[in-house]
Amino acid sequence: MSEDVKHFIVQRVRERRRETIQDTLVVEEPLEIRLNNIPLAVVMRTPGHDFELARGFLLTEGILQGATSDGRRATGESQRADEMIEIEYARDELGLEIPNVINCRIPSILETEIFGWQRHIFSSSSCGICGRASIDRVRVQASPLQGRWQIPFSILQTLPDQLRRRQTTFANTGGLHAAAFFSSEGKIIALREDIGRHNAVDKILGWAMRQYKLPLENFGLLVSGRLSFELAQKALIGGISFMAGISAASSLAVEIAEETGMTLVGFLRGETAVVYSNPQRIQF
Amino acid sequence: MSEDVKHFIVQRVRERRRETIQDTLVVEEPLEIRLNNIPLAVVMRTPGHDFELARGFLLTEGILQGATSDGRRATGESQRADEMIEIEYARDELGLEIPNVINCRIPSILETEIFGWQRHIFSSSSCGICGRASIDRVRVQASPLQGRWQIPFSILQTLPDQLRRRQTTFANTGGLHAAAFFSSEGKIIALREDIGRHNAVDKILGWAMRQYKLPLENFGLLVSGRLSFELAQKALIGGISFMAGISAASSLAVEIAEETGMTLVGFLRGETAVVYSNPQRIQF
Repeated sequence: MSEDVKHFIVQRVRERRRETIQDTLVVEEPLEIRLNNIPLAVVMRTPGHDFELARGFLLTEGILQGATSDGRRATGESQRADEMIEIEYARDELGLEIPNVINCRIPSILETEIFGWQRHIFSSSSCGICGRASIDRVRVQASPLQGRWQIPFSILQTLPDQLRRRQTTFANTGGLHAAAFFSSEGKIIALREDIGRHNAVDKILGWAMRQYKLPLENFGLLVSGRLSFELAQKALIGGISFMAGISAASSLAVEIAEETGMTLVGFLRGETAVVYSNPQRIQF
Repeated sequence: MSEDVKHFIVQRVRERRRETIQDTLVVEEPLEIRLNNIPLAVVMRTPGHDFELARGFLLTEGILQGATSDGRRATGESQRADEMIEIEYARDELGLEIPNVINCRIPSILETEIFGWQRHIFSSSSCGICGRASIDRVRVQASPLQGRWQIPFSILQTLPDQLRRRQTTFANTGGLHAAAFFSSEGKIIALREDIGRHNAVDKILGWAMRQYKLPLENFGLLVSGRLSFELAQKALIGGISFMAGISAASSLAVEIAEETGMTLVGFLRGETAVVYSNPQRIQF
């Protein structure tokens, strides 16, 4: 596996003084995801947890069975359960692993289906939009989210600090997004980092779907960036009923959360927060 | 044209008090870009400057002629100059404009070429990666950047403040990225905002290519977010020799900047900055 940071010689300017230092930068590299040895997509990502990224990508792109009835795929092919997939690094002629190329094996998928998906899945940072060539297909058809749990606001408040403490690579580079899974007790269960916030969410979903069964309705998703449509959509596909973030939400994210029963909280910083929808899961 | 902000009733928590208020959120909506009435891509964007976004998108996706020799497109078709394009909102059967669908007319392009691009351009936030299904094709083949200008560091420092003062929608929503064009005198000439940082850059490039001739080698690009590979690639296609940002750079962005002669500056905040490459364009 490649490293997730790299060192560069740079000039740092501070208080009118300039010094040449060694700086630590987050690595950004393309990952080619193949399905049954056929190239499916290239994602720019930070190396690390590549198999989880691939699994989450296949989930949020609708190739693996999600928690929602996903109307996005045009061709009407059946979705596969996660159990049917094997993931490994691709190998060259000498049998050596190719570090930035992953192969996912799902024997029941036909070549013709994959060529159809190729058209629809070209993607940067695993964005959840790529592949819908017309507006009608952009939105997932979702059944309402369940998840009858509650979390006290005083505990919700502690999440951003927990996130920061666990973002080890970010601490070195300042250049990474994070996505984390939290329980109703307010504990961060797992965290994944990536230069792309969509990748970070795909990685954590790829992790979660191996630990638990979908829908992941009794967990919350905490993200370091903006609460955009695409992230709301990914949470929805995982069946996650609660999403919180450090920054603002977009109009479409709020509309999706309202429609599907997702609790959406933004600007979660110290004593403040904005609850955009479904406050019933928060105890004040 | 649609609005770029929308109002929602939300609950704001502040210092243990909860109040129901009207909040202003940045709008995120899909824009369908058609080429000669054939759907080409759907981009999630903030409404506003849609024509510039489409123009910049066609440029950075390699359909319009960029400043670099672009080796990304597989099919070897000739690229079109910007002059050959007409952009308008698509119309329904009654002849009324469809607000989120744009049609770009380039008469010399054949239908078969467009179907080829469809496979390659599905994109979120106009990312500059979408469409390369194998790693080899990810990188633009670029000739070295020219641009022999210099800017004093003391003037470079003033850019983030200028950016913030002009980010009017951001001030209301906290949810927008910005991309701006600046001159060697340190003046921000134009600024565009979008929920997606790639869109913001495509919008400003779409604007710039109408004002000036490519390559835009005597200007700088200032962005509010991270300095990623994709943004460096977009700057390169525009022939821009200087990119500065408020946040960190990724490893690949720095490598591209080093290879092509682009000056790359990150963490530009008050008295501090990190110069990643080609400091010769900065006077200390």
